[in-house]
Amino acid sequence: MARPFTADDFAARMERAADSAQDAGLSGVLVTPGADLLYLTGYRPMAITERLTMLVLSADHEPSMIVPLLERPDADSAPGSSKLTLSDWSDGSDPYERAAAMLDPKGRYAISDAAWAMHVLGLQARLPDSGYVAMTEALPMLRAIKDADELERMTAAGEAADAAFYDILEVPFTGRKETEIGADLAAALEAHGHSEVEFTVVGSGPNGANPHHDLGKRVIEEGDMVVLDFGGLKDGYSSDTTRTVHVGEPTDEERNVHEIVREAQQAGYEAVRPGVACQEIDRAARQVIAGAGYGEQFIHRVGHGIGLTSHEPPYMVEGEELLLEPGMCFSIEPGIYLPDRFGVRIEDIVTVTENGARRFNHTPRELQIVT
Amino acid sequence: MARPFTADDFAARMERAADSAQDAGLSGVLVTPGADLLYLTGYRPMAITERLTMLVLSADHEPSMIVPLLERPDADSAPGSSKLTLSDWSDGSDPYERAAAMLDPKGRYAISDAAWAMHVLGLQARLPDSGYVAMTEALPMLRAIKDADELERMTAAGEAADAAFYDILEVPFTGRKETEIGADLAAALEAHGHSEVEFTVVGSGPNGANPHHDLGKRVIEEGDMVVLDFGGLKDGYSSDTTRTVHVGEPTDEERNVHEIVREAQQAGYEAVRPGVACQEIDRAARQVIAGAGYGEQFIHRVGHGIGLTSHEPPYMVEGEELLLEPGMCFSIEPGIYLPDRFGVRIEDIVTVTENGARRFNHTPRELQIVT
Repeated sequence: MARPFTADDFAARMERAADSAQDAGLSGVLVTPGADLLYLTGYRPMAITERLTMLVLSADHEPSMIVPLLERPDADSAPGSSKLTLSDWSDGSDPYERAAAMLDPKGRYAISDAAWAMHVLGLQARLPDSGYVAMTEALPMLRAIKDADELERMTAAGEAADAAFYDILEVPFTGRKETEIGADLAAALEAHGHSEVEFTVVGSGPNGANPHHDLGKRVIEEGDMVVLDFGGLKDGYSSDTTRTVHVGEPTDEERNVHEIVREAQQAGYEAVRPGVACQEIDRAARQVIAGAGYGEQFIHRVGHGIGLTSHEPPYMVEGEELLLEPGMCFSIEPGIYLPDRFGVRIEDIVTVTENGARRFNHTPRELQIVT
Repeated sequence: MARPFTADDFAARMERAADSAQDAGLSGVLVTPGADLLYLTGYRPMAITERLTMLVLSADHEPSMIVPLLERPDADSAPGSSKLTLSDWSDGSDPYERAAAMLDPKGRYAISDAAWAMHVLGLQARLPDSGYVAMTEALPMLRAIKDADELERMTAAGEAADAAFYDILEVPFTGRKETEIGADLAAALEAHGHSEVEFTVVGSGPNGANPHHDLGKRVIEEGDMVVLDFGGLKDGYSSDTTRTVHVGEPTDEERNVHEIVREAQQAGYEAVRPGVACQEIDRAARQVIAGAGYGEQFIHRVGHGIGLTSHEPPYMVEGEELLLEPGMCFSIEPGIYLPDRFGVRIEDIVTVTENGARRFNHTPRELQIVT
């Protein structure tokens, strides 16, 4: 087990967030339950509900958090709570009025991307001269650079996902439903130490051509390509890897398409180094696929950041000019999707190092044959 | 199994939502993934992510929905999709620009409570003269009144939760951890047909005094009060019931506190009829508890609406003047919480009938003794 994060770790993160906001010309940062709050305070409410919980960070004030009265005991016991001032509000009172009193009426704040619209509209109504901007837009770097303790967890999550893939290579595919392979994958992730399985995509044959198909009742047959995209949480950090396997001997076309995707994934990986813009990773991989004539069949960005959540900034997408820095972690996952026929995707999580990149996934990227 | 909802059901719901918005002086309704979208279209994306999916309803136009390109196949196959115009956007393009083009630049829209702040801020930035209001505030009745098919599902969910409670009365409590009882509860809910277990609160002894304690490693002892609050989804609709049991013989004080809560719950139930304001249900229950001298120890509202989600409008809380109507479903769950000692809560889901109320939970509300 990795070293647990301490109250001092959380205090340092909160201070850094407040300073970043100031540097960005903002009055502060408003954080509602979710990954940002977990990162900054260690607090994860039992459920995310309509009741307002909000951490307020600013360079001028000590950190403070407003919570519903009945969630106060949980909030009090969070690891970072000793480093902030907690206040509570009761059902029947107006939480936005209370929260507004903690803000600069003419301030401009970054707010969690996934904060409820209801909450931001509630603040806007009480403070018509205040302004808000989404966290990803204002402070994309808030959680993007992982420190040594976080990288240790990401490494372990990747190793566990790899072990699950090796397990799945040994199970029979022919004649079994996608849902059964999915259950095998979930069990393998748990057996290798995942506390939570977030997704087990099993896209066999034509289902593989829908990049967001998860899994269904289709019975896998000899001759199918099968996209396996799976991940979850180990010790609080995310795994996410994709391999495409073939049931029995592939055709030349299948081998060829798979090889193009493998080369594209490699090209994306080789483009990673500090100072390169995120969009260049997308371009590097896309160029390979487009060059092979399959540009129209690669219908999504090449990657997304990962850490406490499985999808977070930075995004490896055309138009994203953010520069890579050591410690960023993200997926590189090009794919080719041939409607009604099959799909291929290959995905590794990588981190930016001082002079290049390092993968967290090490299972073979060459096409593996299953039975 | 209940009759599946059809494309015509969804079309009728969308039309009703658009008409309600018009009646409320709004330009339309913006719906992002979650219960509202499921209710209106039957569509539930594989995951709720940063990628914008949004249904636009207005009395002047046919329903339309914008989805990320790679989620389009899933959206196309949703039960209500044949009744709306789908369009998609690709990674790297600006979804807010696309969505803004579907709106009246000077319009005022209701938007899903839980829509991401990022999305509402994105629309505000592109359409500075547009206005937004949270769905709960603008159209609290959108999903509040359940029709016969929905009531059938709510009834079945309640019956299944009751069956789980009867099962749990038979298991040993003494010497076992809260987490073990929680696992028993989850297994029982699943055994009685729940597809998803959302919460299993087991608050033993002093833990019961924290109304949002879920469950922990505390070993339950003879003499403990134990709050059991559990529920989930059966056939898409929610169960949620609470009973407080006692391990072995209770003291007079424990019996007395339990009886006060039981009477408060009954008083809340008896106050329910069409035309009564929501806050009156809270007052009716609270009056019993306050009258017995425990007013300060009843620290939450008495209830919340329930249906596709376990917490939704209408809320039974002081200040809520919305009038009850037949078909509304909500919890009545007063409690008394004695810090560091024990807690008691009793909760039934009820629905408003033409002339009163009907419970979905029928297990004994008198204090049950477990071993």
